[in-house]
Amino acid sequence: MNVMKAAIFGGKGIVSLGERPGPKIKDATDAVVRVIRSCVCGSDLWYYRGLSQRPAGGPIGHEFIGVVEKVGDGIKSIAPGDFVISPFTYNDGTCIHCRSGWQANCANGGVFGARDIDGGQGEFVRVPFADGTLVKVQGKNFSEERLRSLLTLSDVMCTGNHAAVSAGVKEGSTVAVVGDGAVGLCGVIAAKRLGASRIIALSRNPARQKLAKEFGATEIVSERGDSAIKKVLELTDSIGVDAVMECVGTGDSMNTAFGIARVGAVVGAVGVPHGVVVPIETAIFRNVGLRGGIAPARKYIPELLEDVMSGKINPGRVFDFETDLDGIAEAYKAMDERRAVKALLKVSE
Amino acid sequence: MNVMKAAIFGGKGIVSLGERPGPKIKDATDAVVRVIRSCVCGSDLWYYRGLSQRPAGGPIGHEFIGVVEKVGDGIKSIAPGDFVISPFTYNDGTCIHCRSGWQANCANGGVFGARDIDGGQGEFVRVPFADGTLVKVQGKNFSEERLRSLLTLSDVMCTGNHAAVSAGVKEGSTVAVVGDGAVGLCGVIAAKRLGASRIIALSRNPARQKLAKEFGATEIVSERGDSAIKKVLELTDSIGVDAVMECVGTGDSMNTAFGIARVGAVVGAVGVPHGVVVPIETAIFRNVGLRGGIAPARKYIPELLEDVMSGKINPGRVFDFETDLDGIAEAYKAMDERRAVKALLKVSE
Repeated sequence: MNVMKAAIFGGKGIVSLGERPGPKIKDATDAVVRVIRSCVCGSDLWYYRGLSQRPAGGPIGHEFIGVVEKVGDGIKSIAPGDFVISPFTYNDGTCIHCRSGWQANCANGGVFGARDIDGGQGEFVRVPFADGTLVKVQGKNFSEERLRSLLTLSDVMCTGNHAAVSAGVKEGSTVAVVGDGAVGLCGVIAAKRLGASRIIALSRNPARQKLAKEFGATEIVSERGDSAIKKVLELTDSIGVDAVMECVGTGDSMNTAFGIARVGAVVGAVGVPHGVVVPIETAIFRNVGLRGGIAPARKYIPELLEDVMSGKINPGRVFDFETDLDGIAEAYKAMDERRAVKALLKVSE
Repeated sequence: MNVMKAAIFGGKGIVSLGERPGPKIKDATDAVVRVIRSCVCGSDLWYYRGLSQRPAGGPIGHEFIGVVEKVGDGIKSIAPGDFVISPFTYNDGTCIHCRSGWQANCANGGVFGARDIDGGQGEFVRVPFADGTLVKVQGKNFSEERLRSLLTLSDVMCTGNHAAVSAGVKEGSTVAVVGDGAVGLCGVIAAKRLGASRIIALSRNPARQKLAKEFGATEIVSERGDSAIKKVLELTDSIGVDAVMECVGTGDSMNTAFGIARVGAVVGAVGVPHGVVVPIETAIFRNVGLRGGIAPARKYIPELLEDVMSGKINPGRVFDFETDLDGIAEAYKAMDERRAVKALLKVSE
């Protein structure tokens, strides 16, 4: 395989299916994975919309599951034929940050679909540090439903979980989730999984509200901005919520998050920041904290995988648009136009 | 006692000793305390320097220890003659925030020396919610050294401790303390008390460096800004520190704090914010958190009191200037000109 099909970024508003060199093992710690399912991330829209800079001509996409095709001589934990989940970042698993559970901040790592690293939206991916990066899934012939949930472990389910963990959600918490994208919706699942007794989802889209409720949201707030803050305070006896999950990354969403946080609460933020100004007066005078960031998906995959495999959680339901690599342009378009929460790419069987 | 002597704020750069009505019991939950020792806080300098707005003509000061003079009919935990420490805020002890350990954010509370609430820099103080607010100290005839340490529990030692607790300092942590004022110096004590094995104090003042070392700092960084960041990274194998205590509250100090934080670390911030912009990219892309705020001194006083009384900690050494109420103007001036770390006021015996 000397060439493969892969999505290529062509500049603002342009994504197309092109050709890239078929990946080979370069280092002994590499693996090459044949992609089974991939998808488009909300964060892909930032450059697609021209809101963040990215050079044209390169590979894109950072979420994928697939089957190991080849491994380097140094690989011990996986073998050709294994079904694997890849987190959206590769990591060596041995540096001080990895060993501390911050694999997305690996000293030698990076994100898929950037520079010379293959993107997930393509037929094959060379995975650096495959032992540290990939998680093997026992079994085969997974149902389409199961495949979709496994794919969310590549990013959005782990990122939603990071928001919940960072916000300190625990048994009995009253939680608010700001953002009804795939991450926010997965955040609802995560909050419920950690034992939250009330989950207030901020959403004004009926289909997303419905899914949020099915995932465990107990209340929906459809207002925005100051009206949303007022509404959440009304719902909580003017106290605010015990934990806030900020799953958007804009200035407005951060202000809302801090505005509904109870004294001493933590805002768990996972949105890539665009125009965010942390309301420092609220932070200091109300003792509201900020935690979160790029999720260490590799840390969370094993525990979440267990719940996916047992059917306890079914985050794959966030996919509401389906196509294949040939439909890549339409997948981006559907998400850009908010016709889709999250677009699935059936790359191979 | 119909009138008493008390410090009065006269506008930018002006503090003088004036007269105020001698406090009486207004509510059944009040106590009146005769002030033994008070002091000037770094945060008093914000309005003194005209950097924050404050109406002229009112009482000032929020740190004091003293002896209970009178109590209201509803008071159960203290009696006239008791020696007490007051946190810098009064709190009812019963609201949801108090019960959750956030007494400085009491729904019915406030800070001393504001509006119609007496300041600590005066002969007497009416203490609202005295059962919830005051902490009785067993014993009497305390040495001058002991009195000084007890006085720090009113604010700076608790605030330094809040920075350490918020930053998650624990056994074996490598910690950096940004700020060499009284709070930063008390923060060094707090970090050591919580088991930090390395404490890097940022200070360029030789006297303060010396005190920081005596309090437990293992290294001193005298650089500022980007040079300070570079130096701390050099000292930590380019990793950064496990916990950062931000004890200043300026934009520069916050940038330094985030710049030296290790991936996944938390900045524990207790400085009153002036011009602070949280570096959100560092926060999100390096998973560096922000916690802290107005310290719940009332929560920390009992445990810190134990260590003061046993002589395990001696935070009163931060006082390096001493006067009485008549010298109030000079006390502010000495701190404003950075001739003093912290000015003690001997109000009565």
